[in-house]
Amino acid sequence: MATKKMILDLDTGVDDALAIAYAVASPEVDLIGIVSSYGNVLVDKSAENSLDLLELLGATDVPVFLGESHSSTTDHFDVMEISQKIHGVNGIGEVKVPKAKRAVESEGAVDFIIDAAHKYGDNLILVPTGPQTNLDAAITKDPEIAKLIGNMTFMGGALTVPGNVTAFTEANINQDPAAADRVFRSPLKSTMVGLDVTLRTLLTKKETQQWRDLGTVAGEKYADITDYYIDAYYNLDIDKNGCAIHDPLAVGVAIDPSYAKLIDLNMKVTHDDPANPADVGRTIGDTARLNDPTTNMKVAVDVDKERYLAHFMDLLTNLFAKH
Amino acid sequence: MATKKMILDLDTGVDDALAIAYAVASPEVDLIGIVSSYGNVLVDKSAENSLDLLELLGATDVPVFLGESHSSTTDHFDVMEISQKIHGVNGIGEVKVPKAKRAVESEGAVDFIIDAAHKYGDNLILVPTGPQTNLDAAITKDPEIAKLIGNMTFMGGALTVPGNVTAFTEANINQDPAAADRVFRSPLKSTMVGLDVTLRTLLTKKETQQWRDLGTVAGEKYADITDYYIDAYYNLDIDKNGCAIHDPLAVGVAIDPSYAKLIDLNMKVTHDDPANPADVGRTIGDTARLNDPTTNMKVAVDVDKERYLAHFMDLLTNLFAKH
Repeated sequence: MATKKMILDLDTGVDDALAIAYAVASPEVDLIGIVSSYGNVLVDKSAENSLDLLELLGATDVPVFLGESHSSTTDHFDVMEISQKIHGVNGIGEVKVPKAKRAVESEGAVDFIIDAAHKYGDNLILVPTGPQTNLDAAITKDPEIAKLIGNMTFMGGALTVPGNVTAFTEANINQDPAAADRVFRSPLKSTMVGLDVTLRTLLTKKETQQWRDLGTVAGEKYADITDYYIDAYYNLDIDKNGCAIHDPLAVGVAIDPSYAKLIDLNMKVTHDDPANPADVGRTIGDTARLNDPTTNMKVAVDVDKERYLAHFMDLLTNLFAKH
Repeated sequence: MATKKMILDLDTGVDDALAIAYAVASPEVDLIGIVSSYGNVLVDKSAENSLDLLELLGATDVPVFLGESHSSTTDHFDVMEISQKIHGVNGIGEVKVPKAKRAVESEGAVDFIIDAAHKYGDNLILVPTGPQTNLDAAITKDPEIAKLIGNMTFMGGALTVPGNVTAFTEANINQDPAAADRVFRSPLKSTMVGLDVTLRTLLTKKETQQWRDLGTVAGEKYADITDYYIDAYYNLDIDKNGCAIHDPLAVGVAIDPSYAKLIDLNMKVTHDDPANPADVGRTIGDTARLNDPTTNMKVAVDVDKERYLAHFMDLLTNLFAKH
């Protein structure tokens, strides 16, 4: 079987940076492009961060595409203050990395996704780790791609645990609940890697010290970037035991689903229930489709964190050692 | 191994009546008592229904104990109008069944649960299919029993699907969220059989006709009782395809957990979050205990409905044939 083709759809903050490294380092996939989204930073800054990090990791052959700059239901996006506190204003922990020589592609994110879906079909894995606005726009423009794409594995949502924006909603889904709801209801085969499992997978300064000890530029920069995030988790009382490596876990499960315990569930995203105005952005089973004979969504509800973390460290440390 | 001892804790409406029949008919368990709760009906009516149904099924050796008459946070309970529409005002579909000769025990429900926990320990299975008020009161009076009881498998809650009272809460848990929260946080080994799976397990008039065709009193009465419930599901637009057999599914999973796909999760019940006043009675993972090395709760997220329904019909039809 041919190597799987992967597209990352990132709002490049700290854990997105780790997701780039994971995808670049994984021999099982060919990273054919990164699509930029708004979220942790503005969409332009996201693209810039992705380009700079790719160059830092020697992956200068990976193109970066500009995506939507705001949600499907708004005409503007401002970065939330909490995002800036967690990821730094520049998205990568206020760390300065060398500017990339490569520029953003002239083709837009939506067209790149559509073209790749037709070109690679079942061999294509899409990994959004931010809002689902780009993917929704692509499916709206060309509905057929929802049936073509092999799998969409995303970081976002919370099914068995409360959200991190409100008790009901997780940050990525909350950026554009209407878009995510359309994606969930499409025929796209998808896997949700949400807070259910990412909050179980913590990284500490013990691990980042291993990168720092390599004495390479990539090792030092990635240690600095991640330490900023670990400190934010500590200072904001998100978790005193380390930082959740949300986005690279989605890349890991996309490549090897056996890291997670998966359940089958057709879900919806709440966003327009007049009886429950607080119920916005919740990823929850769709009762109307509960007894459908088939499901096209899987949800990760547990993770083999020891095995995953060992592989994560192995991949990233070997990559950083070379750059 | 000795036959497992089972206590049912029921607010005897229609599906509770089916749970009684399932437990009486199951050779794997010895039904040592039924505890009464408020919910579908008042607590006295619940006890009366349980006694009458036990006698109808020839199980006159099973004692019935009176439980709490209202939740831990109120001093009064009124049956909701919707409960009366679903179960009938008398709880069993307005069907008249012969009065039992046996009376309610003089010992109360709380003391019966405590005594049984000490007597049978790990060999005791508790199956509440209404509010968790009685169990909470028993654990509060004698906390040690939470470590003694072999397993508590309850019908209630909704983890992966919305609730049936609000989008966040299921009817049984909603009766007394504070009590359920204390039970969830106790060391009790428990299994949740919630709307996640009970809404997947539907009974139709095709099945109840088989009971009616037996030509026995029990067959006819149970067909009438259940048809009322199927009609209510249809008329109230809960489900046009049949009625959910919530409570007997909990009894089934308590006896044979392999009917369900179970996940491990320490849960809480929301009821006092000032930031989210709408978030009351939700059964959801407790982030603070997400990375605990052990879990004492399991949640059913899928069910082998064909195998379960076949066994359900086999058990009940054979039982009704004899009475």
